Amino acid sequence: MSHRILILPGDGIGPEIVAEAEKVVTALQADFGLDAEVEHARLGGQAVDAEGAPLPESTLARAREADAILLGAVGGPKWEAIDRPLRPERGLLAIRAELGLFANLRPALLFPELAGASALRPEVVAGLDMLIVRELTGGIYFGEPRGLRIREDGVREGFNTLRYGEDEIERIGRAAFTAAQRRNGRLCSVDKANVLESSELWREVMERLAPEYPDVSLSHMYVDNAAMQLVRAPKQFDVIVTGNLFGDILSDCAAMLTGSIGMLPSASLDETGKGLYEPVHGSAPDIAGRDAANPLATILSLAMLLRYSLDEGALADRVEAAVGRVLGQGLRTPDIAGEGEPVVGTTAMGDAVVAAL
Amino acid sequence: MSHRILILPGDGIGPEIVAEAEKVVTALQADFGLDAEVEHARLGGQAVDAEGAPLPESTLARAREADAILLGAVGGPKWEAIDRPLRPERGLLAIRAELGLFANLRPALLFPELAGASALRPEVVAGLDMLIVRELTGGIYFGEPRGLRIREDGVREGFNTLRYGEDEIERIGRAAFTAAQRRNGRLCSVDKANVLESSELWREVMERLAPEYPDVSLSHMYVDNAAMQLVRAPKQFDVIVTGNLFGDILSDCAAMLTGSIGMLPSASLDETGKGLYEPVHGSAPDIAGRDAANPLATILSLAMLLRYSLDEGALADRVEAAVGRVLGQGLRTPDIAGEGEPVVGTTAMGDAVVAAL
Ligand SMILES: CC(C)[C@H](C(=O)O)[C@@H](O)C(=O)O
Ligand SMILES: CC(C)[C@H](C(=O)O)[C@@H](O)C(=O)O
Repeated sequence: MSHRILILPGDGIGPEIVAEAEKVVTALQADFGLDAEVEHARLGGQAVDAEGAPLPESTLARAREADAILLGAVGGPKWEAIDRPLRPERGLLAIRAELGLFANLRPALLFPELAGASALRPEVVAGLDMLIVRELTGGIYFGEPRGLRIREDGVREGFNTLRYGEDEIERIGRAAFTAAQRRNGRLCSVDKANVLESSELWREVMERLAPEYPDVSLSHMYVDNAAMQLVRAPKQFDVIVTGNLFGDILSDCAAMLTGSIGMLPSASLDETGKGLYEPVHGSAPDIAGRDAANPLATILSLAMLLRYSLDEGALADRVEAAVGRVLGQGLRTPDIAGEGEPVVGTTAMGDAVVAAL
Repeated sequence: MSHRILILPGDGIGPEIVAEAEKVVTALQADFGLDAEVEHARLGGQAVDAEGAPLPESTLARAREADAILLGAVGGPKWEAIDRPLRPERGLLAIRAELGLFANLRPALLFPELAGASALRPEVVAGLDMLIVRELTGGIYFGEPRGLRIREDGVREGFNTLRYGEDEIERIGRAAFTAAQRRNGRLCSVDKANVLESSELWREVMERLAPEYPDVSLSHMYVDNAAMQLVRAPKQFDVIVTGNLFGDILSDCAAMLTGSIGMLPSASLDETGKGLYEPVHGSAPDIAGRDAANPLATILSLAMLLRYSLDEGALADRVEAAVGRVLGQGLRTPDIAGEGEPVVGTTAMGDAVVAAL
């Protein structure tokens, strides 16, 4: 049966970078036996402009039918002043929630060819290869009650609720333990259990799961210490598992350690392995339409899509190897070019990956 | 009128490092006209052991009477398994709340002599000098309701409430704008306003305050981006203002950028300028009692105490200059010694600062 891939170009550089990933899909279909149908739909600002909602019903319906979704990026200054429910990122939050994409996998990997791009000393980051597993559909992002209100003393206040049930913690815990089993068997759970009750439960559930994964060693770290340790000695980590908000902060920090955020893919999976795949970087409106964006994070997101949602591991390996090859050839988009190094544009980079397949 | 300083040695290396700061106080009294009475009380694990509570009534009473408080550090493995309300950090949270110490000032400063200790490339951190102003008595640390409960479907859940009133935001905002006025006039407010209503209000209040401080330029950044920017280009920041939890994470990250967390002081102030001063580093139980701890962060915390709570700016300058001098002389405790560099112990370092006054 043919796989169904839904592509959501989104805003800013989104359309340009997914176009390059689509070239790769086309090549895989033509030459390497990938059996997939590709559809397109709108998310984010482009959806607000065309259909009046950041996650239109039609997009959601097609997303439900797809086996996997590839997203460019959403957001930009154009939509910053509009009503909150219409903001592009609302579309992203809504599709995560509607599809139950609770497991967000964010690798932070230093490509040896790009070691010079990191703000950290080479010896601190050389060989960095870690994975952050972030809970994506719960916690303070979605907790009720929330809002703005006037207190009894007449003062306005804003409030949000951080909530985690054992079931949610167990589910993301299992995803993380399984990921650690497939990697180096070390899982660090990050929380703030010395202050927050929700973290206390988080820690308790992780401990309870541990005996079921005897080949994984579980440790715990407070989130403030984790932020320090990421800067001090990031290679101590194999897999980190944490809640939605802490994961948002720590995964961006970890991504930046590599210095090449334009290279980093991510996956957001549901319980069946269906997923939404997107680069870690944003929509970069400042460079949109200038053939200057790096399509490699999107192409590597496609590789994750092939591996996790379509079970096409061999094709995923092929795509990743092709990316390695173009880096080896010295091809660099502006974001990853060292001082004085020649640069190529978005489309040339995509073409080079296709040629290297 | 004589100033009243309360010293809380605390746990782990706490007693050793405050002892060195006390030598400095004694020298300032003897030779430089400091008119101060020094008292001692217990906080944290030492208070649990001796008086059965991490913040005994007697300590709180004396803290209320003092003009300023110098704390070593609290916590250690000995008290990790005990009941939550008895944990050492509960004492710290309680004293912050009871005394209304809402403004936590955490400088992240790279000492030129110690540039080699940073995990970041020298050009990224050379000259780093920023200040994080963290709200310390509100937000999710103290928000009600909170706890553990059994949901209607029988599943246990943990929950916490993030709450900020306009009054609280305005108060910390003013502290931060004022700090920025005294520094380089740039204030970056960090929030997660694209997801959290409490952050929406935070941003609104900061904007509303801005016109009152025309000499300060205000910008806003999402917390995930701030974590990235701290790693990528920390020198872009002058003053950051943020809530309790984000401040906990970002200030530890910023401190670690310098590589010498053993050098960094902090102040937690109430509305009148009374404050509690403590090193940013923790109680380091692994090196306690071995004359290996670095007393300089505590001595620099004393300098902040002199400046902010006792209005003894000249004495504060003198203490800071003395610390600069001992670094210039090449004195290094183990935590800040480069490879192969000779090291001195805690007491020798304290004595050297006294000699350099
Ligand atoms: C755009 C924003 C709502 C989103 C988040 O906070 O989850 C983004 O930062 C991310 O990490 O994917
Ligand atoms: C010990 C802990 C409760 C405390 C906090 O989270 O505030 C500490 O990390 C700090 O930053 O002073």
